This record gives sequence, structure tokens and C-alpha cells, in this order.
Amino acid sequence: MDIFPPRSIIYQKVQQISSHILAKNNYQLVFFPTYEYESLFTNSLGSTSNIIHKEMFTFKDRSDRELALRPEGTASVVRLVCENKLVQEGYPLKIYYWANMFRYERPQKGRHREFWQLGVELINAKGGFADYQILKLVSDILQELGIAKFNFCLNYLGNKETKERYKSLLEEFIKDKIANLCNDCQQRYLSNILRIVDCDKCKQKFSYPPYERAWNNQDKDNVKEINNILNKVNFPYQYDFNLVRGLDYYTGIVFEVNIETEKALLGGGRYDNLYQELGEFDLPAIGFAIGIDRLVDYLETLPASLELLKINNNIDIFFLIAEQNFYLEVLNWKKELEKLPLKIEYNLEIKKLKNLAKIINHYRPKLMIILGEKELKSNKVFIKDCEKKQEFFIDKEQLIKWITNYFQKK
Amino acid sequence: MDIFPPRSIIYQKVQQISSHILAKNNYQLVFFPTYEYESLFTNSLGSTSNIIHKEMFTFKDRSDRELALRPEGTASVVRLVCENKLVQEGYPLKIYYWANMFRYERPQKGRHREFWQLGVELINAKGGFADYQILKLVSDILQELGIAKFNFCLNYLGNKETKERYKSLLEEFIKDKIANLCNDCQQRYLSNILRIVDCDKCKQKFSYPPYERAWNNQDKDNVKEINNILNKVNFPYQYDFNLVRGLDYYTGIVFEVNIETEKALLGGGRYDNLYQELGEFDLPAIGFAIGIDRLVDYLETLPASLELLKINNNIDIFFLIAEQNFYLEVLNWKKELEKLPLKIEYNLEIKKLKNLAKIINHYRPKLMIILGEKELKSNKVFIKDCEKKQEFFIDKEQLIKWITNYFQKK
Repeated sequence: MDIFPPRSIIYQKVQQISSHILAKNNYQLVFFPTYEYESLFTNSLGSTSNIIHKEMFTFKDRSDRELALRPEGTASVVRLVCENKLVQEGYPLKIYYWANMFRYERPQKGRHREFWQLGVELINAKGGFADYQILKLVSDILQELGIAKFNFCLNYLGNKETKERYKSLLEEFIKDKIANLCNDCQQRYLSNILRIVDCDKCKQKFSYPPYERAWNNQDKDNVKEINNILNKVNFPYQYDFNLVRGLDYYTGIVFEVNIETEKALLGGGRYDNLYQELGEFDLPAIGFAIGIDRLVDYLETLPASLELLKINNNIDIFFLIAEQNFYLEVLNWKKELEKLPLKIEYNLEIKKLKNLAKIINHYRPKLMIILGEKELKSNKVFIKDCEKKQEFFIDKEQLIKWITNYFQKK
Repeated sequence: MDIFPPRSIIYQKVQQISSHILAKNNYQLVFFPTYEYESLFTNSLGSTSNIIHKEMFTFKDRSDRELALRPEGTASVVRLVCENKLVQEGYPLKIYYWANMFRYERPQKGRHREFWQLGVELINAKGGFADYQILKLVSDILQELGIAKFNFCLNYLGNKETKERYKSLLEEFIKDKIANLCNDCQQRYLSNILRIVDCDKCKQKFSYPPYERAWNNQDKDNVKEINNILNKVNFPYQYDFNLVRGLDYYTGIVFEVNIETEKALLGGGRYDNLYQELGEFDLPAIGFAIGIDRLVDYLETLPASLELLKINNNIDIFFLIAEQNFYLEVLNWKKELEKLPLKIEYNLEIKKLKNLAKIINHYRPKLMIILGEKELKSNKVFIKDCEKKQEFFIDKEQLIKWITNYFQKK
């Protein structure tokens, strides 16, 4: 998918803002390959998840190895962390990625075959304070992006045993209602019953048993610890006991953030067993991913983003050169002004002054400095202050000083 | 290829610095898909170039369409600009991309199958001032990256006719020396004679006819115009009449930048016909691409980059929590300090104070604030100033004020 201005500027701004917050919290960027052996993803995501079944972009390389364009980032991070031995015993590892992912979905609004994700992982970190750190980080990023209204939905999935207990509860509840499920959910009943509670169609017909009924004492203690921290620091949250998330590897708290009408704009959770399964290290971890494309869709609807685009598009000075002889002078002026944080443009080919209004409309400069026949003879330049709507002549020798003053006052 | 700290921090810094310079020069970021129809690249790169012959990563999607992971960016930019009609008549379009490319090469130092490029394109812009703007931009980016010593090698390839004239000159020169060429060049003599002058092996044996002998009067005028501008602004450059670049689409000036012993760390040139060939628009253009991986390899050897890494890794405050009861207090302190640009960490699980030296060594904080049994009883906290090598107690009530002062003085 092509992304270009003005939309691309919002992507860039999201990247800058989130990178800043992440650096402040001591997270460091990693890059991993666009494709991996297919088995990495089939081993990590669970063979029943939608991603595996229908959505992976697989191909063979020239040596006939089965490769896949990455459909998500966590499995790659696990491989990267293990292979490069990034974890130091006794210390959490904080890393993030900004990467494009590939899923073979029918394109629809905000769901492209290639899409961008910011993923954040807190590795070798267990307990409620680690969980809280991740939730707080999400909240910080959203706030810094100018998003005021959002809410956190939490659930606690627990380990394999807890999941099995919930599946039994669910099976018990559903078994005499199978005929009333949608076609997809009738399939899920056989292959991945947990995903039934996620189905928007069926959700409305049934109230499934709440997940908390599957919790054992350890689970309850874990939930209590998290809630305790969140309550003490006044972190707003609510539980959604039907939240199960799309991926099989979660083992503890899971969460999604809804922003106004945008459901699950981002989500994540704890996955304490994935490192053991893929890399034979015992590394508890929690992370989240933000779908950047949908986030940008949402940001585009906010008035603040229009403001942002205006700031980014402003040219400070446009030198309108109508006489060839002025070119070298402009290059020298530009050089003298180089140290100032100004966006300066000039026309690459001679323009006629009669196009002035059009040129101003295209570049929207603060100052238009006009260099035509008159200026060639007079040793003055004509300045059009497009912000203050003033026009005047200035001696060429005074120009740099005048410009410097003009922008320093701002 | 995995890229992780500290190396990944240099990538990020290169991206930040170049984005800043590009924004100042009014260039805007675009993103394009990782894969395109294979034909886009075969049409643009010339069927004889190495990239096509051996290096493209091709595969079929589920609808049996021939796709290729992008081997370079210019063809994609051309498609993006045409499809989305980004050019406004009469105005240059300035865009750039930061994207990973894919070539099926035998991995060697700095040459990975997946590699990162910063690409910059000045579209709908002709003449020497456009050429100069691009060269100046390269120079600005390199300087801002702390690279002092670099030199620009230029050549002027000209349009198809000029290239054909040079090919004839070359053929004439080579035809009685074919047996002395390396095996690859004997192939090239038949398929793509121009690339022979590029061959490091054969270059040493022959002095090929200089490219300027193929220039007609128009070519000479164009070269004169560019040289004239570069001379007037004291831009350092030299001509290498054997520089032909790897891609077929160049039509005017081409250039490479050598940095100390690093040959052709970046390169580019003018391609005035590619838009017509691929998109049926008449848009003269010039651009360049920087191979980021090799650039980072080089930057890693500079002392300045070590400095950079130090800055990025510094934690400002580490709260060492040795008593569970301190957790909520630390979270509250952290919240109060949130507005300051400080990196603050705390241990997620209770640590023993006997590990202090190890923890300091891992995080290298400016301040270590220790919260143990003593502090629980005394209403004071113990501060270890790791920079000034001082240790002292401070009243808990004074802590935030003291920290604020401490960092404001810096």
C-alpha cells in the first residue's frame, strides 16, 4: 500500500512521538528480517489460529526452503532475543520494533495485506509491576499522541490448565446451542473453541460463562496483585471476561484498548511460556502491538492532526527567482542562513512573476522574496510578508540580518 | 538480518538526523509496498542488469501473480508518484523513503540479502540547480552525521544516443582484448558492455576510453552548467570517466561518494526518461540512495559513534527497591517526575542490596536511590551519586525537589 503526504507525515509523527516515550522508558529499537522460516510462526502462533490457517504469505526461496513474510512480531522477537542472547540474567530486557507485517486478508478499511505495527516487549520480567509498566506505557503513548479518551479492557487467561478449565466450561455451556452458532463458530467449536467468545455475531445471542470462573487460587492472587497496583495509582481499567485475543501464546493478563468507536486499536498481554517453547529459555514476558494504520485512520479524524500537518508543510522563505543572474546570490544567501532552522525553497527554473499568486498558494511561505528585473537594477529585493500581509523593499546587504531578526522574534 | 542494541541505536540516529535534514529541505516521507509485480522491476532496471539476472527475490501469490520483493526503490517511487498523481504541474516534488530492499546475493560484510536504504528523489526538476541541490543534500546529510572526509565522483552518462556512442568507443577499444578480460567481463561484452568499465579486476589492466569522448555539444553544455554551479559555490567534486553505475535508467549526471576507504557508500544520478517509460509522464528527475547498513558499519568505526551510544544508554535515576512497601511510593515519585526529561528505572522484583555494584554496572545510572530496611524506618532515602561519587541521606519529603534541582543544574 502506498502512503504519501499528508498521511505519511502522521505516520512519521507517530513514530517520532512513540520513539521518544519509549526511549524515556529505556526501551531500545530492534530490527528483524521481513521473512523467517515458516515453522517459526507455525510453532508460535498455534496451528489453529486464523493467521496460520488463511493469512500467511508463504513462499520458497531458491534453495527450496519454506519462508513466510512475518505476520506478527513477537515470534521474531523471541527468536532474535534467543539467538543473539540479549537477556542478561536477573535483568529485564526492554525492546521495541517498528515493522511492517503481512497477512493475506481481503483488504478492507484499515486492514491491508501489508500493515505497520509498533510492537513493544518487556522480557524477563514477571509480576504485577511489569504488567503495570506495560499498561502505563501504552497510556503514555496514547496521551502523547493527543488521544484523550480511551479505555483499557483486561482479562486474565492464565496458563494452559486455566485455559483448559475455561474451555470445559464453555463446552458445557455451548454443547446444546451448537446449531444456533454461526458457521464459523461451528467450525471453531471443533478446532478452537476459545475463539467463539470473540465472535461479534454470536456474542449478541449468548452470554458465555465469565472467564473468572476458570481461575484457580494462584490466578486469583495474580489478578488481585495487578488490580491492587492499578487501583493504588488510579489507573482506569475494566475487565471484559470474554476477551480472549487472537493468538494462542498468552498466559496471563491480556488487554485491548478501545478508543471511542474504534475497538481494539491495540492489544497485548503476558506470554510466559513462549520463550521456553521456541527458544528453551525460561523468560516470562509481556508486550503489546499497535496497528499503526488504523491508529493513523483515527488520528486523521482528530482536529489536532490537521494542526500537525499545517506545521509540517510550512515553508519559511521562498526565493522567487525571475532573473537567471540571481541564482548564485540565492545559493550564497541560503548558505548563510543554513544554521537557522528554516525551510528555504527557490524555483529551479526561471519563473514569471505573473504566477506569483499560484506559487504562494503552492508553497504557502511565510516570506516571499522576489528577485526580478527591478531588483536586478536596484540593489534591493522585494519582500512579501505573507503572514502579516505586508510588502516592502530591503537593501540586499541588509537581507540576511533582516531575515535573522525576523525569525528570531518568532 | 537481526539488528539490535547498540548497533540499532546508530540506525535510529542516522534516521533521525537524515529525516531532520530532509524536512529542512522540504522533502517528505513516502512508504511503498515491500513487494510489487515483478514486471515493474524488469521494465525499469533493464533486463541485462545484475539485479534482474541473479538477485531478485520472486514468488507467486495465491492468485498466481508474479511478485518480487523490491530490489531497489526508484521504480516503486515512479509507480507511486504516477498512480497517485503526486506531481503538480510546474512544481518539483521532493520525496524520500527509508525502506528495506531484498537481493539474493551471497551474504558478505555489509551486503545482506535484506538491507536498508534511504532513498531521496527530486522529481519534475531539470537543470543544473536541481543536480546541485541533490549533491548539496548528500553533503549536508554526511556532515550532519559527523562524517568529515568524503569525496564526490561524478560522471555524465547522457541519454541513449550518448550511451550508444560510448558503447561503440568501448567496443572498438576492447574488441582485440577480449581474451584478456575476466570471465564475467567476457559475458558483459556480449550482454552489457558498459558494465565492463566498472569491473575492479579488469580496470587495472586497461585504461578505457574516457566517457567524455562520447559527449555531444548538448552533453558538454549540460556538464558545463553543472560544473559552473559547483565551482561557484566551492562544492568539491571530481570526475571519474569510468563511473557508469549499476542501473540502466540513468540519463545525465551520475555520482558516487567515497568515504575514506569505503568505495561508493552511496550513489545516484539523473533519470529523465524513467517516468515516461513506466508511467507515461514526462518528468525529469534525479535521486540518490544511501546503503544504511554499510554506512552504519563505517560509523561504528568513528569515535563519535561511541559517544553517541553512551548518551543513549544513560539511565538518570535508578530506584533500587529492597522492601516491597516502597513500590507504590516509587510509582508516585515516578509520576511526579514524569514531566522532566529523565530516564527512570526501578527493579520489578525485590533485589538484595548486596547486588548493588552489579546493578550499577548494568544500568550505569547517574543517581542510585536506595530503598531498604533502614530507609523504611528512618523516613529518609539513601542516594548514591554515581557521577560525583558521593553518598548521602535525604528526607523523603525533600526528594522530588532535590532531584528536580539536581537535574536542572546540569
